[in-house]
Amino acid sequence: MNPFTTNNARLLSDEQLVKIHEASMEILQQVGMEVHNETARELYARHGCEVDSETLRVRFPPKVIKEAIDSIPPTFTFYARNPDYDRTVPEDGPLVMTASSAPRVLDPVTRQERSATTEDIARIARLVDRLEGIDLFSVSVLALDAPPGQNCLSRFYTALKHCSKPVRGSGEVGSGSVREECENVLRMAYTIAGGEEAYRDHPFITHHYCPVISPLKMDEDSTELLMYYAEKELPAHHSIVPNAGLSSPLTLAGTLAQGNAEYLGAAALSQMVRPGTPLLYSYLPTVGDMRSGAYASGGIECGILNMAFAQMARFYNIPCSGYIGLTNSKLVDAQAGYEKGLSCMGGLLAGMDVLQFAGLIDALLTFDYGMAVIDNEISLMLKRVARGMEVSEENISLDEISQVGPGSMFLETEQTFARMEDTALFPDVADRDTRQTWEEKGGHDAWGKSLLVAKEIIERHGLSYFSPEVDTEIRSQFEDMVPGEVIIPEGW
Amino acid sequence: MNPFTTNNARLLSDEQLVKIHEASMEILQQVGMEVHNETARELYARHGCEVDSETLRVRFPPKVIKEAIDSIPPTFTFYARNPDYDRTVPEDGPLVMTASSAPRVLDPVTRQERSATTEDIARIARLVDRLEGIDLFSVSVLALDAPPGQNCLSRFYTALKHCSKPVRGSGEVGSGSVREECENVLRMAYTIAGGEEAYRDHPFITHHYCPVISPLKMDEDSTELLMYYAEKELPAHHSIVPNAGLSSPLTLAGTLAQGNAEYLGAAALSQMVRPGTPLLYSYLPTVGDMRSGAYASGGIECGILNMAFAQMARFYNIPCSGYIGLTNSKLVDAQAGYEKGLSCMGGLLAGMDVLQFAGLIDALLTFDYGMAVIDNEISLMLKRVARGMEVSEENISLDEISQVGPGSMFLETEQTFARMEDTALFPDVADRDTRQTWEEKGGHDAWGKSLLVAKEIIERHGLSYFSPEVDTEIRSQFEDMVPGEVIIPEGW
Repeated sequence: MNPFTTNNARLLSDEQLVKIHEASMEILQQVGMEVHNETARELYARHGCEVDSETLRVRFPPKVIKEAIDSIPPTFTFYARNPDYDRTVPEDGPLVMTASSAPRVLDPVTRQERSATTEDIARIARLVDRLEGIDLFSVSVLALDAPPGQNCLSRFYTALKHCSKPVRGSGEVGSGSVREECENVLRMAYTIAGGEEAYRDHPFITHHYCPVISPLKMDEDSTELLMYYAEKELPAHHSIVPNAGLSSPLTLAGTLAQGNAEYLGAAALSQMVRPGTPLLYSYLPTVGDMRSGAYASGGIECGILNMAFAQMARFYNIPCSGYIGLTNSKLVDAQAGYEKGLSCMGGLLAGMDVLQFAGLIDALLTFDYGMAVIDNEISLMLKRVARGMEVSEENISLDEISQVGPGSMFLETEQTFARMEDTALFPDVADRDTRQTWEEKGGHDAWGKSLLVAKEIIERHGLSYFSPEVDTEIRSQFEDMVPGEVIIPEGW
Repeated sequence: MNPFTTNNARLLSDEQLVKIHEASMEILQQVGMEVHNETARELYARHGCEVDSETLRVRFPPKVIKEAIDSIPPTFTFYARNPDYDRTVPEDGPLVMTASSAPRVLDPVTRQERSATTEDIARIARLVDRLEGIDLFSVSVLALDAPPGQNCLSRFYTALKHCSKPVRGSGEVGSGSVREECENVLRMAYTIAGGEEAYRDHPFITHHYCPVISPLKMDEDSTELLMYYAEKELPAHHSIVPNAGLSSPLTLAGTLAQGNAEYLGAAALSQMVRPGTPLLYSYLPTVGDMRSGAYASGGIECGILNMAFAQMARFYNIPCSGYIGLTNSKLVDAQAGYEKGLSCMGGLLAGMDVLQFAGLIDALLTFDYGMAVIDNEISLMLKRVARGMEVSEENISLDEISQVGPGSMFLETEQTFARMEDTALFPDVADRDTRQTWEEKGGHDAWGKSLLVAKEIIERHGLSYFSPEVDTEIRSQFEDMVPGEVIIPEGW
């Protein structure tokens, strides 16, 4: 468990947490939410909400929200194709997830931007499968090459073919009927698992949706999915996405209060469908850059809001997950590094369970292969901090200090040899050579080196997680399915 | 004050802090320190230490250390030429200081490494003078062009000529008699201040020294300085520099216990000279990379140790300062960004008062002008986190949320206009344009942009803080004094 779930850096006092909670309750009761899905409105009404079917406004008595909060379980499990990679929070945290659904990629050969395809997803899936610091694969990019109606299907097919870690979906909404698209994905999942029952025993896809359009509006389709997943007992959760100055007040406290209201309003619906439905408290809060209206996801205020939302989640005893470690940089440079580094450490020390950031740059618009490798290294550093410092008689090393004595060296003590491998991380990307050695080795910057590491990992992987029989069966069920093969482009 | 001095991320529990404290007391009592300065040994003996004049070993009864701890004041003040820039910790924290005494510079024109000179110090002084996020100027580089015997003098002369913030020295030890060199610096300071009395009223140089060579050895010269500054009531403090696996045990707890013992042993001497001498608890703890023995200052373990030392300092109620946010990168790339970002945020949230990192790369060997500008931006981000989130009725914005209502926008509310300037930072370096606009503006990475910002600031500054009379007087006192002028090299 992330030790800072309890010993965390406290941005907000207990009293302030209560104030925000009360403000959220007041927002839900006085302003309410505009709910566009009729079934949802009916459900809200049946559970004690005040519903105005003209304005679509749903108002929540505090009691309704309180019941929902009490009914959300304190843990959430991500299942994987390979059960060794199953992860439950808070106990297995901190976990790191890829950031997802970028429309574009920096081509690893030209380093120029282009549209993302399932060829990218295949390579990324292998990379994530092997990056030790990345626990959860939220499919990083969209698929321009997906056949009509197979948008989600192509992405999941390719991701599951090459990655045995938990796969999280995002963006199941879009082409055609949401329910049909979702049912197709499940049909494929049953085939992969060897039947519906086997899949339901170990459901290795986690569904994700954003039913709330800030401020305080619940849409038709994602709300439909929210209810569908809860009803079918499929692992799923929603995220709220307030953007201060654009879709929430231009104050951090106002954005927190409104976002918290939005989270709770949608969470209540899942509990109304099926009490005890597991959820994450998941958020992507940002602040607009008021000079241009730009989406300033790399801004430190995004980190501060993540820290505060983590405290709210702890206040309700719901495991939490945030989009953090984001950057506005267009490439993998110092800006990408410090924007990610600062907010990720903030999230860790505020006690977050899941940090979602790996692989993306340019305000979630673009994936870069090298960035994913560097983010893996950031993740290992965060996990090293979470491991902390063992204070034992042996580790305090009084005898060794006494034996070595003033003015001597510890380099060759028995204890130093014994601890060589596990006291400190050995990074793959971060360079520690002398300048001369570094120059002799080619003088790569971190981006250049990370792209080489990415290529090497993808090339070496060489596995598909679908047997030929399963693959044939899936491909016969869905005509025009993308190939989903891993290709290393010339010149990488 | 850094709000995380109290609401901090706690790496160590209270019980663990006591264990480390007790281990340090045991180290000081059982092993002791090897003290090479005879006057110091006499002083230690006079105050109750057990001194072996054959082995030079000084052993400390717990009572002696306890008295010293109780006598160190809870605050420390950095004085500046311009009193508006005076800073006291903890109350004015978190403060950011430049990292200091690099022998080399990346030339801003060629981006190649070369030796540092006072020409660099002049430019850096102007830059630091104007970078809003940097509070304290520890002279960033050495001076290859200093005349014999004027090593410190040249550096301070040039730094004070162009920077009106607090200037901290480092490395007064080296050429010739330390006392003579130090007295020359003070003579210059009196001239600048308009006399000795005026200087002593507002001593704008803070002296810094490293008397302890880990493990547990106190040298001749820096120990001499420690006593000299305490006796003369000059602002000064020492840092300890244990390196796990090389000069301390290869465990974090062992390095913490030994480093803490070293800090306290030297601190006791300053209190013996003059009880109540203000001090910082200052540290530069690192872990060696055991693959090569490299000084892995960018490693996350350096951040973890900083967090732990901050907790020790709080335990004793001594204001603290750490070398953190260091990097092993050879240039200003993603590695420099994430190594700095991660550990700086760790230090902030652990409650550090002073973070010393700005400007250096390559394990403290090299200064880069762009890095200083980027570190200023990191500092502003840290200070934004420290400012936190105001939770007031006005900031929670219930009325505004109610007025805007579900599905609308906050972009044009009166409150948004009113808060435009102060909710979020507007960074100078971090790019937030669309990719297209960014390309049209030249497609600079953060390093390229930061070098342009640095040049612009230095060019625009155009001030010297020495009157012609003072400058003439100093130059007549010290023959061969370096010019100390600001030159913008061709092609920057």
